[in-house]
Amino acid sequence: MILRHRLDPATIPAKRLPKTSPAPVRVLPNTGFACRTHTESIELKTQECLQFIDLTDEIANIVQRSQIQTGFANIQTKHTTTAIAINENEPLLLRDMKRVLEKLAPETDEYLHNNFRIRTVNMNPEEDRNGHSHCKAMFLRTSETLNICNSRIQLGTWQRIFLLELDHSRERTVSVMVLGL
Amino acid sequence: MILRHRLDPATIPAKRLPKTSPAPVRVLPNTGFACRTHTESIELKTQECLQFIDLTDEIANIVQRSQIQTGFANIQTKHTTTAIAINENEPLLLRDMKRVLEKLAPETDEYLHNNFRIRTVNMNPEEDRNGHSHCKAMFLRTSETLNICNSRIQLGTWQRIFLLELDHSRERTVSVMVLGL
Amino acid sequence: MILRHRLDPATIPAKRLPKTSPAPVRVLPNTGFACRTHTESIELKTQECLQFIDLTDEIANIVQRSQIQTGFANIQTKHTTTAIAINENEPLLLRDMKRVLEKLAPETDEYLHNNFRIRTVNMNPEEDRNGHSHCKAMFLRTSETLNICNSRIQLGTWQRIFLLELDHSRERTVSVMVLGL
Repeated sequence: MILRHRLDPATIPAKRLPKTSPAPVRVLPNTGFACRTHTESIELKTQECLQFIDLTDEIANIVQRSQIQTGFANIQTKHTTTAIAINENEPLLLRDMKRVLEKLAPETDEYLHNNFRIRTVNMNPEEDRNGHSHCKAMFLRTSETLNICNSRIQLGTWQRIFLLELDHSRERTVSVMVLGL
Repeated sequence: MILRHRLDPATIPAKRLPKTSPAPVRVLPNTGFACRTHTESIELKTQECLQFIDLTDEIANIVQRSQIQTGFANIQTKHTTTAIAINENEPLLLRDMKRVLEKLAPETDEYLHNNFRIRTVNMNPEEDRNGHSHCKAMFLRTSETLNICNSRIQLGTWQRIFLLELDHSRERTVSVMVLGL
Repeated sequence: MILRHRLDPATIPAKRLPKTSPAPVRVLPNTGFACRTHTESIELKTQECLQFIDLTDEIANIVQRSQIQTGFANIQTKHTTTAIAINENEPLLLRDMKRVLEKLAPETDEYLHNNFRIRTVNMNPEEDRNGHSHCKAMFLRTSETLNICNSRIQLGTWQRIFLLELDHSRERTVSVMVLGL
């Protein structure tokens, strides 16, 4: 089903890729059927700040249940103090990434968002001092869209899909929609 | 229409989520109709560097006009010195985020891109010294894809969709495409 | 085919956009046909750390070959130490962006992921000391989704699509899926 061919060299931006080998390209054939969607929400409770929760198997199961063979899976968090991250699930690396994230927007910095004496907007009784969480989230992603071929998400060897908690332990929801044929 | 069920415990990565409650999952049924698209461009003039422009209501209206009930809304900026950001619209928080962004790639740093004595590529008469804007954009997003169920974008309580201006006041275009059933 | 109209002023969030001009919106008409997909993998060998490889022409060709007129192109890297970046292809700017990326997660920092005396997970014979690459990737993107209208990706004047190598010279694969009508 997979046709492997090389691109015509003229289509490769030669000036910018002087030493690369020509880029082989694999093509999957077109199909023309009715489009379907399948949507699930993953609801979970996180435990702590900067927890990486590996949802890869969960999301692969959703794709299986969708019975969609080719299309997109869009993974979207519904919170402003979490993120969707795709990276390797190696415990020491997760600690490295936490350190770099913390350096970028330290919890110990002063945030105007945490100053409840001057703040008036979006205040509620159980308001958290989570300015650092929002500022970390700004550099991360609300959604990642992944390609599905032959009913499988096109993930590389080390790619795992995480929900990353940037605030404290909370109830969280991740929306997963599969759309395709 | 929403069937709520629990995942089989075997599908939860137990080692990584030792203390979480099992993840309940909500499933929306499949449908099989012809796919449609609806595309609009939001054109606006920004006022200043690091302005957050809340486009959420605008985009919700586009989804309404699309009459698409289930699918994706893809929000894409057409500029290299703006970004699409999803976060809380709390004025003090916006000031916090500007501060952290400015720390990451300060406007006052020296950028080779701003050195018009040595630069030869992509120069034009009204060229801006906006190396900092491009460097900030690198850590932000050109596009975010959001799930639509029952004609509504699946946004959480505090999620708002912003165009973030990283350069000075300019004419800007955001492309919004809704695709689905 | 493009109808240009202005939004009803009531739909503009006036409080947040006090000085902007009203946002004109261009609308493309709905269509209702069978959805198709077209998938190609771009395989290439990168040369060095922090190399930006411009894949824009390659991806435009894929969209042309797909014969899809309206829909999404999703560009997804299959690696945890590369990223998809959309920015201007100006050689001096690329050097600026490398500098800011290196400042965020320097190769010379100590990473637990690089400490092969204590690390036990995901070890293999040719394991790289690439903690910095993963930490840089955390702030960048695995995927970007772009809108296609009239068989063209809706890119702005300066927007180019890059694969960004965050590790050393390696064989890399980028998955491109076009889905639409």
